[in-house]
Amino acid sequence: MLVLSHRAFLHPPKPSSLPRIKLRASMNRSHSPVLDFPYLPPPHRDLMLSLLSTVHSRLASHLLPSSVPSDVLSFHNDASTSFGALDIRSGAHDSPVDFILESWLHCKLPTGALNITTLFGFLNASTEAPHLLMEFIQGSPTSLILFMDLLPRKDLVLHPEYLAEFYQDTQLEKLRQELNNLPYVQPYCSSSLYIRSVLSPTAIAVNINCGADGESSMEEVMGAQLSSVAKEVLQIWLDKCACSSHQMEESERNVLIQRDNLIKNKTVEIDLSANLPRMFGPNVAEKIVGTIQKTFRI
Amino acid sequence: MLVLSHRAFLHPPKPSSLPRIKLRASMNRSHSPVLDFPYLPPPHRDLMLSLLSTVHSRLASHLLPSSVPSDVLSFHNDASTSFGALDIRSGAHDSPVDFILESWLHCKLPTGALNITTLFGFLNASTEAPHLLMEFIQGSPTSLILFMDLLPRKDLVLHPEYLAEFYQDTQLEKLRQELNNLPYVQPYCSSSLYIRSVLSPTAIAVNINCGADGESSMEEVMGAQLSSVAKEVLQIWLDKCACSSHQMEESERNVLIQRDNLIKNKTVEIDLSANLPRMFGPNVAEKIVGTIQKTFRI
Repeated sequence: MLVLSHRAFLHPPKPSSLPRIKLRASMNRSHSPVLDFPYLPPPHRDLMLSLLSTVHSRLASHLLPSSVPSDVLSFHNDASTSFGALDIRSGAHDSPVDFILESWLHCKLPTGALNITTLFGFLNASTEAPHLLMEFIQGSPTSLILFMDLLPRKDLVLHPEYLAEFYQDTQLEKLRQELNNLPYVQPYCSSSLYIRSVLSPTAIAVNINCGADGESSMEEVMGAQLSSVAKEVLQIWLDKCACSSHQMEESERNVLIQRDNLIKNKTVEIDLSANLPRMFGPNVAEKIVGTIQKTFRI
Repeated sequence: MLVLSHRAFLHPPKPSSLPRIKLRASMNRSHSPVLDFPYLPPPHRDLMLSLLSTVHSRLASHLLPSSVPSDVLSFHNDASTSFGALDIRSGAHDSPVDFILESWLHCKLPTGALNITTLFGFLNASTEAPHLLMEFIQGSPTSLILFMDLLPRKDLVLHPEYLAEFYQDTQLEKLRQELNNLPYVQPYCSSSLYIRSVLSPTAIAVNINCGADGESSMEEVMGAQLSSVAKEVLQIWLDKCACSSHQMEESERNVLIQRDNLIKNKTVEIDLSANLPRMFGPNVAEKIVGTIQKTFRI
């Protein structure tokens, strides 16, 4: 939910006559409602559970307990047509992790259900290594837009050594091509020029559309190639970035922080502030954006 | 010829048994051999002539006479299977134009003829406005890869105001979409991650492939939509960039110069030094690269 303008989807959902669906009541803090994914098709759910489980076990010692209020951990709109869950775990004092943000959104639309899941790993200024972005926007059982990227924290034109270290040497391009060359897969372009600038040259940004009767094809793509590529991208980030550190001069560190703050500010402005009110109404949206802004310290 | 790794094309051309083709003898300095385009299909030739004519008339007072030696103005390989022409006009002392580079390459390959035309407008540090890149790589009468972009000179993530001024407000995205939405047009991705980083988020990078029997379709696309979009992109650059100036602090100017130098260095390294020897042999390639490096002051 963080870095997209989902223009194709985000017409305001009309109050529908569907029965109100009760949220699962597992609001105790040892089990985050984000991990329930109650509305996701199974291959999408399995993939998210696997990715989050890897992050949690690998970064366990890095993460503080969640302090997200319960009405942001789990929320819905007045008409109970849109549901969501958001959890944020800040990094411990001596960790390079700034925070891990996990969320799902579910939105009943006249055309069907929209499910958006996000995993965002933001690092602090003790390292210059890239942030992690994974976002899956499933507009129907047969179509999915996805973004997976290690977001650069330096200007790659000015820092070819950074491009070489995090993007060339890690063979991320091979993974991008692997997915892009599959049947049903088309490149996808964010409508926001700023978001396009934030992405790396090996960003995976695709639209997978298996057509009107391709539900089994979508399950196959998600369960096999997409799942495998997503796990590899996450592994690269965990191995190469999330536990790294880098000595920096103060001026270099200041530019890094300024750049990170701009990414945070602009993503809130472009995506959340523009779209959440339409999905959840102004009050719920304000609480969610407020919690994120507090984490972002903006 | 400047910013591409044309991997699809650049297998070393084998000496063929084709008759040696004489270069046109118009080597006098008032008429640059670049303007002859002797091998180009008519719609490609008409487009290039129109673009160069606009640049020459609009920037006449900005440009010094060419000082490119005659064996670089026009050249070919020993086997006379590859031909080329390159002209460079440096900007006058008080102009924001650093140089205008124009070139064409023609290469006979076992599969047919490859024609590459380039128009590159590089600005100096009296302005921060983007450079111009236009490159058309015609692999057959029915297929064309093209790059048209205003190359950013600042990190767009750190400078959203620059993104707004030169990319959002100029409506370049509309032109990109206009071309991308045409039949036969597919997005094209450079194989070089560095080149991808250099391009702007509104860069037009496409592969137009009209299929085995689509010569008339290609003529139509080039003569109508492509020609119209290319002229508009050039007009935006001429109006908004090529005659602009911008007061900068010294530190800001130094970063700009460092970034420009990296773009120059890397494009020579990635494209010219890697590919020209294969097309023209080491001696001819050395002369061409040497002339360009002299212009680039690297």
